[in-house]
Amino acid sequence: MTNSQLTLVQIDNYGPWTVTPEPRREMDLQTLQSRLFADLAQFVGSRDGYVFFTRFDNMVAITNGLDADDHRLLQETIGNRYPVTISLGTGIDASPVEALEAATAGLQHAGSAQDGDRREVLSGEFLAEAERTGSDVQIAHFDVNDATGKYTDQLNEFDSFIQIEQGYAALMRYLREEYGALSFFVGGDNIISICPAMDGDDYRDAIDHVEAEAGVELKVGVGVAANPHVAGMDAKHALETCRHEGTIVELARPVDEVGITTD
Amino acid sequence: MTNSQLTLVQIDNYGPWTVTPEPRREMDLQTLQSRLFADLAQFVGSRDGYVFFTRFDNMVAITNGLDADDHRLLQETIGNRYPVTISLGTGIDASPVEALEAATAGLQHAGSAQDGDRREVLSGEFLAEAERTGSDVQIAHFDVNDATGKYTDQLNEFDSFIQIEQGYAALMRYLREEYGALSFFVGGDNIISICPAMDGDDYRDAIDHVEAEAGVELKVGVGVAANPHVAGMDAKHALETCRHEGTIVELARPVDEVGITTD
Amino acid sequence: MTNSQLTLVQIDNYGPWTVTPEPRREMDLQTLQSRLFADLAQFVGSRDGYVFFTRFDNMVAITNGLDADDHRLLQETIGNRYPVTISLGTGIDASPVEALEAATAGLQHAGSAQDGDRREVLSGEFLAEAERTGSDVQIAHFDVNDATGKYTDQLNEFDSFIQIEQGYAALMRYLREEYGALSFFVGGDNIISICPAMDGDDYRDAIDHVEAEAGVELKVGVGVAANPHVAGMDAKHALETCRHEGTIVELARPVDEVGITTD
Amino acid sequence: MTNSQLTLVQIDNYGPWTVTPEPRREMDLQTLQSRLFADLAQFVGSRDGYVFFTRFDNMVAITNGLDADDHRLLQETIGNRYPVTISLGTGIDASPVEALEAATAGLQHAGSAQDGDRREVLSGEFLAEAERTGSDVQIAHFDVNDATGKYTDQLNEFDSFIQIEQGYAALMRYLREEYGALSFFVGGDNIISICPAMDGDDYRDAIDHVEAEAGVELKVGVGVAANPHVAGMDAKHALETCRHEGTIVELARPVDEVGITTD
Ligand SMILES: Nc1nc2c(ncn2[C@@H]2O[C@H](COP(=O)(O)OP(=O)(O)OP(=O)(O)O)[C@@H](O)[C@H]2O)c(=O)[nH]1
Ligand SMILES: Nc1nc2c(ncn2[C@@H]2O[C@H](COP(=O)(O)OP(=O)(O)OP(=O)(O)O)[C@@H](O)[C@H]2O)c(=O)[nH]1
Ligand SMILES: Nc1nc2c(ncn2[C@@H]2O[C@H](COP(=O)(O)OP(=O)(O)OP(=O)(O)O)[C@@H](O)[C@H]2O)c(=O)[nH]1
Ligand SMILES: Nc1nc2c(ncn2[C@@H]2O[C@H](COP(=O)(O)OP(=O)(O)OP(=O)(O)O)[C@@H](O)[C@H]2O)c(=O)[nH]1
Ligand SMILES: [Ca+2]
Ligand SMILES: [Ca+2]
Ligand SMILES: [Ca+2]
Ligand SMILES: [Ca+2]
Repeated sequence: MTNSQLTLVQIDNYGPWTVTPEPRREMDLQTLQSRLFADLAQFVGSRDGYVFFTRFDNMVAITNGLDADDHRLLQETIGNRYPVTISLGTGIDASPVEALEAATAGLQHAGSAQDGDRREVLSGEFLAEAERTGSDVQIAHFDVNDATGKYTDQLNEFDSFIQIEQGYAALMRYLREEYGALSFFVGGDNIISICPAMDGDDYRDAIDHVEAEAGVELKVGVGVAANPHVAGMDAKHALETCRHEGTIVELARPVDEVGITTD
Repeated sequence: MTNSQLTLVQIDNYGPWTVTPEPRREMDLQTLQSRLFADLAQFVGSRDGYVFFTRFDNMVAITNGLDADDHRLLQETIGNRYPVTISLGTGIDASPVEALEAATAGLQHAGSAQDGDRREVLSGEFLAEAERTGSDVQIAHFDVNDATGKYTDQLNEFDSFIQIEQGYAALMRYLREEYGALSFFVGGDNIISICPAMDGDDYRDAIDHVEAEAGVELKVGVGVAANPHVAGMDAKHALETCRHEGTIVELARPVDEVGITTD
Repeated sequence: MTNSQLTLVQIDNYGPWTVTPEPRREMDLQTLQSRLFADLAQFVGSRDGYVFFTRFDNMVAITNGLDADDHRLLQETIGNRYPVTISLGTGIDASPVEALEAATAGLQHAGSAQDGDRREVLSGEFLAEAERTGSDVQIAHFDVNDATGKYTDQLNEFDSFIQIEQGYAALMRYLREEYGALSFFVGGDNIISICPAMDGDDYRDAIDHVEAEAGVELKVGVGVAANPHVAGMDAKHALETCRHEGTIVELARPVDEVGITTD
Repeated sequence: MTNSQLTLVQIDNYGPWTVTPEPRREMDLQTLQSRLFADLAQFVGSRDGYVFFTRFDNMVAITNGLDADDHRLLQETIGNRYPVTISLGTGIDASPVEALEAATAGLQHAGSAQDGDRREVLSGEFLAEAERTGSDVQIAHFDVNDATGKYTDQLNEFDSFIQIEQGYAALMRYLREEYGALSFFVGGDNIISICPAMDGDDYRDAIDHVEAEAGVELKVGVGVAANPHVAGMDAKHALETCRHEGTIVELARPVDEVGITTD
């Protein structure tokens, strides 16, 4: 069984800030949002977690391996270097969406995202080292087959984008509704999902569903480990196996065989 | 009539680079992609253009105001500071999607996105100063009504995200199919569209369509100018008018009244 | 004769900000300072100017080619993305230090660097296009001979650094006192100087002085143009000529032969 | 007694890279150097170490608290995101300069800084957790008295810079020759020194020396701890004590009273 530690990163009072005293240059907002996300990716990523840009004013991270001190430091360093501050809510559950529900609720209880007074909330619980196991995190890395040949080299970029987007939307809804899994577009034709314990048939069903609903053909590599980086890297290698073997679902380690894994 | 200059920014041979000699840490790819986009946003944005992250390995920009030398310099500075290079294709047309079609085709003719030899293509045509007018660029800035109250403060972040995503997907497809307009999610609950000459009724239809299909309520501010920054800033101010007046469609300058506008 | 447009970039009220409400993590200050400088380098550099980190809270730029609107935009974009703001003072003179004197005075007249109220000053004059000539900017790029063999591969890094530092200090004082030239360490074993009209003998004297005072052997490439980028790139190529010819002073274009240069 | 773990960060083959195939835009080199340093500052700083830009192609860090895996990861993440790679050499000694000597030697033995083949060396030894004590790191934070009133608000920026520079040069040479301490300018009027066990009289002597040689008046705050961040923050607070008490030397914790300190 998985045990996901999800952290919601929410910029405090961002809506009002973007228009006070007047609306700000859009490309400056894009720059600030992207660089803030990049800093989170480095901080969380170098501690073996994963973070996804999601809506930029709200970003979702899976933080197995990061404790309360890490979250506190992240908040402090962002506050020292940006014109905005962030609130961090964390939750833990076998179901990724339930963990995120708890993480989000921690912030909502402290106040609105646009509360003039709510700043730098740090809420929630963190996995103790003794509680962690090698099956805590399941990461699925989906990839469109031959995106270059079918879309990028054929269609104008927006029509390629619409195709990828529809494949993403179909997968995202299906996995959330069926499994409580959370899926994020990570660029190109790639989607990474934070999953509960799912098996090869579950992934085959998901791929079939996306092909039927959106006409987009996916393959997937799946990894299971104590932290997102190891699980995700195993998933990438499994995806390379798909490429070499011509398969569409590869599990780096069969779900039921994972016990306590050393990194 | 609009006259959009669209530029496609495509990272050369990125797929192979991400897995050679071995797959790279995912959070390092996220960091590189986001910071590359941020640099494009600063370069293009400080010259009054707009750029959108789109798929990160392929990014769409509207570059009215940037000439061939600007594009050449952008390519050079990225090549000096990143482990990858970019190809730039530009096209001009009254219809945004047609302009992007031409821009994309310029790169496709030079070679595949994953061509081992194709590097730093610079293709296409650029608007001459004498040809530019104050109605060249129409920017629509869409925003979800009370996203904070309806979603952010109520649902877990992923379910909020699914709602915003579905609103975006519906708008994106409709505007592309009906008008050849190109729509991009820019964070929070905001979508910016590069539009041809459209009027208030066209926008009301689009908003009705999105509410019917996805259940998401939008409002929009629209601006028209010689360059994206001025048009986009006018659109933001028009959106503020929506907020103050309680309206859902506001045009900064009536489409048929725009002639040559000084910045 | 040269005609240097110098801009002083000064962070507003930075000293107090670093300790309010409490001292901040030193590595966060280093990150903020370096990234702010990097953004200035991109903005100014892509407009063919040069900027030097100097003291980080105060940075010196040579901005021939940037006008009032460029300076205003630079101030705005920094203010949108950092937790601090900048004041910009500009001055013009054949003598670099006199131009900087005027630039600095513009800010000093508006208020102290630590004035609780002084924010985002924009002072000074900017070269009109019609006034610019191809001899406005003289850039000298100094380089230590075989720094790798003599220092980097031989001594511990701090002792290498002390050697380079002493060479820099000797050159910096000499050029400022004799010519009003401004010299900046730019990394490795490289120093770039903003010079008035100086000839080959002047540079030979400077190099002799540094060898006598600090025991550090330099070579120099010099360029003259309408803007810092072209002058500086010519200087770099002249330095390569030094390497190939075994000379120690090379002028890209003899000072008295430069008239109106096309970029 | 202190026990400093020093790491030398050296960009591999950087000189040749800057001119191949041709010299690169200077402001792009400044941007790359500054952003690379900023990333090192975040990685090392968030693990409670300190890093100094030094010569940018060679940077000095005090890394008590970072182990071999941390250094390996730092090398990997830089290699994934920059067009250059870094070699890392580490050394340990009570004397900071001796530790740096060992760190530098580790790289020199592996090959020249401009060796066409030498890439990503990882050499040296790392302090084991069991060996660490609360007196391992001594950080002195020097600051010029009333730099704003005496220099910044009075002189042109270059003449202010020359004053600060001369004070730095005098302090840097004196502390290295007398104590094997390593001093780094960190912006404004601030210098941070990595010191062996020194007492209040030693610091008073250093301050007297700098005033006599360069005419620059300093004050200093000193901290001692197991890692640079805690020692350095204590030093900053001691500097605030200087400001409030009107003293010029303040030790956060008397050198001889420090035993095993919990962070
Ligand atoms: N975030 C992320 N994106 C990736 C990764 N690998 C590839 N990509 C993206 O996917 C895009 C397409 O690359 P590929 O999937 O290799 O190309 P393809 O044409 O679909 O080929 P096949 O997948 O082998 O059928 C690249 O341009 C990247 O944007 C990865 O590990 N992480
Ligand atoms: N890219 C971009 N995002 C914006 C802009 N303004 C607001 N946002 C985003 O929109 C989010 C929600 O802010 P608002 O739209 O002001 O909040 P709301 O609750 O929907 O309120 P109303 O729109 O006034 O009904 C913010 O957190 C930002 O992420 C903008 O100009 N550009
Ligand atoms: N800012 C800047 N630094 C440079 C430039 N070229 C080289 N450097 C720096 O100078 C350092 C030493 O490189 P070189 O000067 O080529 O090496 P050297 O051993 O001194 O060799 P010679 O100068 O050819 O005698 C590099 O590591 C860089 O830090 C440049 O154009 N700009
Ligand atoms: N790196 C770094 N620089 C600092 C720090 N504190 C201040 N500075 C720099 O020092 C500059 C001058 O600030 P102060 O030292 O407070 O000003 P001052 O006029 O010298 O006043 P006193 O030192 O109180 O006499 C600032 O602009 C910053 O650049 C710090 O903690 N770290
Ligand atoms: Ca693919
Ligand atoms: Ca809204
Ligand atoms: Ca040299
Ligand atoms: Ca001071």
